[in-house]
Amino acid sequence: MKNLPAFQKGQPVRQIRADGERSRQAILKAASELATVEGLGGLSIARLAEHVNMSKSGLFAHFRSKEELQLATIDTASATVNREILEPAMAAPPGVTRVTAFCEAFFSHLERQVFPGGCFFISVAAEFDGKTGGAVREHALAAYSRLLARFTEMIREAQELGELDAAEDTAQLAFELDSFMLCVNFAYLFFRDPVAMARGREAIHQRLARAAKPGKARRIRRA
Amino acid sequence: MKNLPAFQKGQPVRQIRADGERSRQAILKAASELATVEGLGGLSIARLAEHVNMSKSGLFAHFRSKEELQLATIDTASATVNREILEPAMAAPPGVTRVTAFCEAFFSHLERQVFPGGCFFISVAAEFDGKTGGAVREHALAAYSRLLARFTEMIREAQELGELDAAEDTAQLAFELDSFMLCVNFAYLFFRDPVAMARGREAIHQRLARAAKPGKARRIRRA
Repeated sequence: MKNLPAFQKGQPVRQIRADGERSRQAILKAASELATVEGLGGLSIARLAEHVNMSKSGLFAHFRSKEELQLATIDTASATVNREILEPAMAAPPGVTRVTAFCEAFFSHLERQVFPGGCFFISVAAEFDGKTGGAVREHALAAYSRLLARFTEMIREAQELGELDAAEDTAQLAFELDSFMLCVNFAYLFFRDPVAMARGREAIHQRLARAAKPGKARRIRRA
Repeated sequence: MKNLPAFQKGQPVRQIRADGERSRQAILKAASELATVEGLGGLSIARLAEHVNMSKSGLFAHFRSKEELQLATIDTASATVNREILEPAMAAPPGVTRVTAFCEAFFSHLERQVFPGGCFFISVAAEFDGKTGGAVREHALAAYSRLLARFTEMIREAQELGELDAAEDTAQLAFELDSFMLCVNFAYLFFRDPVAMARGREAIHQRLARAAKPGKARRIRRA
């Protein structure tokens, strides 16, 4: 009985759909990982079928076109990024602690190689920059922008709570902290620089300490 | 006569070689530009032949393999980067002025779209990170490392001249300034963010001002 298709085992339709959905999620997880190494543009149904050891027709049952596959891969990667980076930050108390938790979760997801090619969004950004666009680039751009906007909100919250100086330009501070995370992603992956992570942490710590309200500096600790 | 090959016009062999070399340089310039948009990995002889409107056999006369073409493209891109970024910096007086001139030349080469996909090395780094390597990655890595080492030397020189605090960790300061240039490259290309360039300049200016020896801060001006 074990190897028979679900419908021949008398399982309810809901169960069959759930199996299909699980399979789809497993395919998309593999696709989001592969995309950080080989590029989202190279993510054809044929290449993915080879990678996950499925037939092309089996994959076509899930995705009717390369673009549909690419868009769904971005959604799966976004969900992974939310779970790995945004949720740990939101679990921390608001203020500088949350800002630091976001950065730390980013570094941790690099160290644990959640995606083999580093940050999914940076990988896609690097691939599509200089190109004229299309729906895939726009979809990735929107998800990446939402993530960066959430990080900027966390910084603004720390200012509103009086932990960071309200006189600091929020967007400028976000730009600088984003820069350090971006550079760690590069140095860690391309140069395989073992001290990049430490430099990134130090840069973020020092920058937040300088942005601290006078007398609040000692509240800011390394993660 | 004009359209006859050089050897049929009775030109000396030296002239033919010079023509061949010019043609090779023109092909490699096109290749280095194309690589920042489509990737160095995708730079096959067939793809380049199509791009420069030459026959595959014509290109094979210049490059015997895809790898030879990729390595030569990196050398040509390196020469462009030296001319566009390193030489303007070296033309400035040593110290903070030279450090600032380097950053400004980097921003200028982005604004003028010397490479359509932004910084050649960042583009290649993003493409090859997460991969196991090979001679092409190693060659690009070596050229990129030399450029970053030259920038770090400029910062050390500014410390030795007493314009920047000797107590600053040179490598850490270089990491932070590199981060800002990297982030501008991304924000400018992927997000097409018109204020990214201004944020990058402000971040570099502020960081150098903070690293200035007490009493020397007013020597550090925006480019």
